[in-house]
Amino acid sequence: MISPVKALVFDVYGTLFDVNTVEKKCNELFDGKGKEISLLWRKKQLEYSFLRQIMGQYKTFKQITLHALEFSLQKLDIAYENDQLLVLMEAYTELAHYPEVENVLREMTDKKLAVFSNGSRDMLEPLINYSGLTKYFDNIISVDDVKQYKPSPASYTHVLNTLGLEREEILFMSSNGWDISGAKNFGFKTAWINRSHSPVEILNQHPDRIYEDLNGILEWK
Amino acid sequence: MISPVKALVFDVYGTLFDVNTVEKKCNELFDGKGKEISLLWRKKQLEYSFLRQIMGQYKTFKQITLHALEFSLQKLDIAYENDQLLVLMEAYTELAHYPEVENVLREMTDKKLAVFSNGSRDMLEPLINYSGLTKYFDNIISVDDVKQYKPSPASYTHVLNTLGLEREEILFMSSNGWDISGAKNFGFKTAWINRSHSPVEILNQHPDRIYEDLNGILEWK
Repeated sequence: MISPVKALVFDVYGTLFDVNTVEKKCNELFDGKGKEISLLWRKKQLEYSFLRQIMGQYKTFKQITLHALEFSLQKLDIAYENDQLLVLMEAYTELAHYPEVENVLREMTDKKLAVFSNGSRDMLEPLINYSGLTKYFDNIISVDDVKQYKPSPASYTHVLNTLGLEREEILFMSSNGWDISGAKNFGFKTAWINRSHSPVEILNQHPDRIYEDLNGILEWK
Repeated sequence: MISPVKALVFDVYGTLFDVNTVEKKCNELFDGKGKEISLLWRKKQLEYSFLRQIMGQYKTFKQITLHALEFSLQKLDIAYENDQLLVLMEAYTELAHYPEVENVLREMTDKKLAVFSNGSRDMLEPLINYSGLTKYFDNIISVDDVKQYKPSPASYTHVLNTLGLEREEILFMSSNGWDISGAKNFGFKTAWINRSHSPVEILNQHPDRIYEDLNGILEWK
């Protein structure tokens, strides 16, 4: 690691924001089923993004997230109305951010800060505005601009093109092991935010750093 | 559906063979953990095939299956030895086929019969030989010949090239909803063998037929 890091690029869902905060809203609508809905919803959301990338059938993450929700409710045999879907989709723009996030962002003043997400702007921008974190970021980068989901090399290329930097000048952070594998495979420096204390994914790409939460990146100040 | 079906092409894992039969062997080695190992192993096996396809980092399905097993045991905090991994990998070549399979294959005498699988030949051929079903198939087609996993269009193209048929002359059967979506997206006729009574995947591709098991395809005789 000779070349200095010039930009910190953060994944959004699971990394800055806790996707499991939808569980509460799910519980309000479907009593006692919040946890299983929330877990299956997230699993299918990711699966649909992977499958559509492989099939060459891109839809926005907002569309995919809605499809994943509908599938999950059907799979769990839960009857639902369209307005309940809208309430839950709305919850995705009001996720809580993890407690250390704002302090860490505030400290990293000498580097470019950006988010890079599978989320489309109609999900990302309301969420980041809602959280009050918008002021910390120089760029909000969405795969939707190039319609190529992570972990495709084409998606990470879009980060390079947006920031005008070299691969090794970027430190990419994600709590998603597969996203870290993809970013490392592409050539970014990577820090895996291993919030769930999981083993490293066996995808031939070891993260440069592993931290329990985002406080770990303060060593890059 | 004007053009007649000339070939029946079967997915292997989950469609002809029950991947959950590894649960018994997992239980023998890791008492009481068979079910959770078996479920996570299968989940990670598919996930790794999707991720490697997207990252452009192909490894054979045998390698991926081993990696998925190792990750699963680590994730479940189960200590293991290398020879236990070998025993479980061996179990993948001794899966049970579903009870109706042989009778259905025996009945479909007027069509070409083939399997098409993500599995590499070093997994597929021992399995199909072990089952005694080899004699029914004209072709054993593996994505490993082109190193493109399903549900990529390139993988299904390999079936066309092998069989020398048009897309709509092929009826493809899989119990995996995502595989049916990929095959239908490519242009095959599709029959989803919905063994788990799941809802249809919301990937904009509806199967032509849905059956509870393979007996349903007898209507194509």
